[in-house]
Amino acid sequence: MNNNLLCDIGNTNFSFSNGTKISVDEFDVSSISEKVYYISVNAYWEKRLSMQDNWINLRSFIDFKKYYKTMGIDRIVVCEALDNAVVVDAGSAITVDLIKNAKHEGGYIYPGLSALAKCFKDISPALEVSFNFDIDLDKMPKNTQDALSYGAIVPLLSDIAKISQDLPVLLTGGDAKIFLPLIPNAKIEQDLVFKGMKKIIDNR
Amino acid sequence: MNNNLLCDIGNTNFSFSNGTKISVDEFDVSSISEKVYYISVNAYWEKRLSMQDNWINLRSFIDFKKYYKTMGIDRIVVCEALDNAVVVDAGSAITVDLIKNAKHEGGYIYPGLSALAKCFKDISPALEVSFNFDIDLDKMPKNTQDALSYGAIVPLLSDIAKISQDLPVLLTGGDAKIFLPLIPNAKIEQDLVFKGMKKIIDNR
Repeated sequence: MNNNLLCDIGNTNFSFSNGTKISVDEFDVSSISEKVYYISVNAYWEKRLSMQDNWINLRSFIDFKKYYKTMGIDRIVVCEALDNAVVVDAGSAITVDLIKNAKHEGGYIYPGLSALAKCFKDISPALEVSFNFDIDLDKMPKNTQDALSYGAIVPLLSDIAKISQDLPVLLTGGDAKIFLPLIPNAKIEQDLVFKGMKKIIDNR
Repeated sequence: MNNNLLCDIGNTNFSFSNGTKISVDEFDVSSISEKVYYISVNAYWEKRLSMQDNWINLRSFIDFKKYYKTMGIDRIVVCEALDNAVVVDAGSAITVDLIKNAKHEGGYIYPGLSALAKCFKDISPALEVSFNFDIDLDKMPKNTQDALSYGAIVPLLSDIAKISQDLPVLLTGGDAKIFLPLIPNAKIEQDLVFKGMKKIIDNR
């Protein structure tokens, strides 16, 4: 096992394996001189960092044939870490991936919870509420706040239950905590990306 | 049965029982001199029309105690038309309502398909695609277009299947046609709002 500094660059943040998170708008390349292994779904930063000798892009170490062509590298790296699981990465978008026998069986993309709140508000000012996920999932909602909260999350939960059957559901991403009490037998694994990155570095 | 001119005013259109549809931005009040019974979820137009003698707002004929306080009047009127059904109104928002023994058991709100497409695009330009709903719903997607199309619609379909059980699923709204082939035993009933309005007028 190595102890390299790892970084997962998203559309919003630089997330480092030492726990540091920095907004993509505020990140200063010159602040880090040590070697960093990274993945990036952020095209702008991936291009900028290609000119930095101490930033090693893990993209070239991945066997892309195992995955679909346009799948985000962050999702691929998580799949590299696992053998059997449903992975729900709840960030600005929510990705749901099915991995069976270390093979990626496919996955889908659902809007993130903040994006959904904005989406409702854009449809009509009458649909602007803050979600309340402390609702009875077995009862149909009877007020607008519950109707929107339920609509934002319950269809997704129904589908995850259908897909996962007896597989473990692993939650990651900034909104993982919101999903934890809503999915039976789910657990949070925030370091799946870094686990996958370590495995890729070790297997080079 | 009466043959009054009816109008359902939404956030986007004036929809008349004679089939005419006019954008809320282009509607000219002076173009109609006959009596119109209407409902409106559009606060601006509801206020403007309250000053027109020939526009009769059906709001005052509805028993709101049977429904939750902030429920849109268009959803209420549809429920008035039915005894046992799941109603999916797929417009700028998608509402799913459960009616059993002529009682509204609750319902939820999901973003409309155009709103979802915009929502994905707002999250990241990489998530801008046009949906393709001609997909195999039993297989997890393996490309971005399918992953977004599947994510937009399959969680909702899973939940509708769970709720509806042996109740008929009635589709209405502009995107009803998209849902028709995706829900077993669903049928399109575009005139549910007008059916409910007629029932309310007849029962006054």
